[in-house]
Amino acid sequence: MPRNTQILLDNRPRGQASPDNFRLVVGDTPALRDGQVLVRHHYLSLDPYMRGRMNEGKSYAACQPLGEVMIGGTVGEVAESHHPAYAVGDKVVGMGGWQEWSVVDGDAPGMLRKVDTRHVPLSYYLGAVGMPGVTAWYGLVRIIDPRPGQTLVVSAASGAVGSAFGALAKARGCRVVGIAGGPDKCRYVTEELGFDACIDHRAHGDLASMSKALKQACHDGIDGHFENVGGYILDAVLLRANAFARVALCGMIAGYDGQPLPLANPALILINRMRIEGFIVSEHMEVWPEALAELGGLVASGRLRPRETIAQGLAAAPQAFLDLLQGRNFGKQLVKLI
Amino acid sequence: MPRNTQILLDNRPRGQASPDNFRLVVGDTPALRDGQVLVRHHYLSLDPYMRGRMNEGKSYAACQPLGEVMIGGTVGEVAESHHPAYAVGDKVVGMGGWQEWSVVDGDAPGMLRKVDTRHVPLSYYLGAVGMPGVTAWYGLVRIIDPRPGQTLVVSAASGAVGSAFGALAKARGCRVVGIAGGPDKCRYVTEELGFDACIDHRAHGDLASMSKALKQACHDGIDGHFENVGGYILDAVLLRANAFARVALCGMIAGYDGQPLPLANPALILINRMRIEGFIVSEHMEVWPEALAELGGLVASGRLRPRETIAQGLAAAPQAFLDLLQGRNFGKQLVKLI
Repeated sequence: MPRNTQILLDNRPRGQASPDNFRLVVGDTPALRDGQVLVRHHYLSLDPYMRGRMNEGKSYAACQPLGEVMIGGTVGEVAESHHPAYAVGDKVVGMGGWQEWSVVDGDAPGMLRKVDTRHVPLSYYLGAVGMPGVTAWYGLVRIIDPRPGQTLVVSAASGAVGSAFGALAKARGCRVVGIAGGPDKCRYVTEELGFDACIDHRAHGDLASMSKALKQACHDGIDGHFENVGGYILDAVLLRANAFARVALCGMIAGYDGQPLPLANPALILINRMRIEGFIVSEHMEVWPEALAELGGLVASGRLRPRETIAQGLAAAPQAFLDLLQGRNFGKQLVKLI
Repeated sequence: MPRNTQILLDNRPRGQASPDNFRLVVGDTPALRDGQVLVRHHYLSLDPYMRGRMNEGKSYAACQPLGEVMIGGTVGEVAESHHPAYAVGDKVVGMGGWQEWSVVDGDAPGMLRKVDTRHVPLSYYLGAVGMPGVTAWYGLVRIIDPRPGQTLVVSAASGAVGSAFGALAKARGCRVVGIAGGPDKCRYVTEELGFDACIDHRAHGDLASMSKALKQACHDGIDGHFENVGGYILDAVLLRANAFARVALCGMIAGYDGQPLPLANPALILINRMRIEGFIVSEHMEVWPEALAELGGLVASGRLRPRETIAQGLAAAPQAFLDLLQGRNFGKQLVKLI
C-alpha cells in the first residue's frame, strides 16, 4: 500500500487560525477490506466552513476532532477497489480530507460518487458543480426564490459560491450585483462572470460608504441577498432592502475568529418584512441532483467558467487555507495533490 | 349631526413619546353623503404599532400625518346609514381612529365590517378576535408552523397578541412559554391563560440571566418564537434556539424610542439554521377569515378569555397609550368612549 501524507488538526485557534494549528504526518494506508475502495486524491478543496469546524463548541456540525485528519472535499481516481460498483480508474468525488489517499467504504451513503469528466473538468466537482455550486443554488432557488428582473446581491462574489450564484441568477433573468475585495476581483466579477455590477468592499469599508455604494448599484433596491461574509455588509444590505426581501445566510466569515459581530438594526427585518434564513447545504441532499444537473449544464455550455487558485502539494494546504480566509485567493481555492 | 371629539398627532416625539405629542379638538361630524355610514365608537383600540407610525421616515406603513386624527381600530354601532348594507344599530369594527364618531364609505374595502356579538363581546373584535388575534395566528401558523410537542416562546405574553398566541399554540399541542413583566402578569399568564411557564423579564433584565431562565423553562430548547419586544430577549432566544427554529418578528417595541437595538450574535441564525421573518398582518388579508373563525371559536368555547384594561373617555387615550408602551396595561388596552 502507498505511503500517505496527511494533515491533522493539532490544536485549536485562539483568535485567528495559524499554520501552527495543523500538523503534517506520514504513514501507511491500511489494507483494503471487502467493500472498500482506495482513492488517490487529485485535488483537495479548501472552504471557509472548515474554519468554523476548527472551533470548539456549538456549531451546525460536530467540531473537527483534534489529532484527526482535517475534513475536506476531494476529487480523485480509484486506485484499487474491493467494491463491485467501483473500478480502477473511475473518477470520484468524496470527503477524503486533507490527505493524499483515502480508504472509503463503497456502501457508505454520500461518501463517494462517480463523476463524468467529459464535459466538466474533474476539479469543478469541488466547486461550480460541487458543494459550493449547490450551496449557491439552494440559497438562490429555495430561499431567495427570485422573479425575473429582481435585483440580487452576493458577497464574496468572485469565490466559488459567488460565481455560481451569479450564473444561476442571470439564467433566471435577475440583475446581479457582487461585492468583492479589490479592483481586480471586481473587474473579474463583471467582465468574466457577467455580473451587472460589483462593489469593492476595500473601497467601501464602513456601513455608510457601503450603503451608498449599494444605493448606486441597486437603483431599485435589493430584493434578495446571499450572505457569505456578515458584519457591516449585511447591515448595509438591510438598509437598502425592499419590502419582502429575502436573505440566504450561508457564511459569517467575518465573525469566525473572535467576538460575535452584531447586526446593527434588526428592526429593519420587521420594517421591510424580510425573511432571513440560515442553511447548510449538506442538510438538503434532496436538491443535489437537480442543482448539479443545472450547474453541469451551465459549465458545459460555457456560461459558468469560474477561476481556480491552485496550491501545489498537501504541505501548502494550511497556508492556502489561511490565505482563503483573508480573501487572498481568486475564485475556487484548491490544492493539487499529484 | 353630533359633536365629535378627536385626538390629532400634533408633533412627533423626540425619543420617548409624551402627552404633548397629541392635541384634543372638538368639532362637528360632517353630514352623510350617499353610500356613507355614521358610526358611534364604543371602544378605541390602543396598540404598540401606533408608536412606529408617530415617527417620520421609512416604516412598513405611511407615517401618521401631523394634524390628522390618530389612526386606530374601533368598534361601535351604526348611528345613521346612507348605505344599503348597513342599518342603524348594526355592530361594526373598523379603523375609525382616535375619535368618538366616524363617517365611513360603506363600499371602501376593509374599512367596515359587521360583527356578531351573540357569543363574542364587542370589545373582543379589537383584541382576541381582531387584529391582535390574527397577528398571533399569522405568526404562529404561517411562520412558526409548529408541530405538536414543540416548545414555543412569546414575549409580551400577557398582552392581546401574546394571550391569543398562547391559546392558539396550546390548541396545536405545543408547549408554550411566555415572557412578561412582573409577578402578577406572569401568574396571570400561567394560571389564567394556561401557558406552561412564564418568565418575568424584570427579574431577568440582562442577556445572561434571561438565557439561563429560558434554559430552565425550555428543557428541550426553543423551536419557535414570537417576538413582540426585541432587544436582549431576542438575543437570549437565539442562544436557546434549536436547529431549524423559526422566529416571527412582529414588534420591536424596545427600539421605538431611540437608537436601533442591535442583535448581538446573528451568526446564531446560521449556526442554528434558523428562519427569522418580519410581517405585518394587514398585508395578509387572505388569512383573516380562517384566523377569525378559529379565534372566535376559542372565545366562544371559553378557551380564550383575555383580560382588558379599559381607560374611560377619549381624553384618557394619550396617557393610556404611553402606559401601554411602558407595559403598564394588563391584557388588551382599550379606551371606552360611551
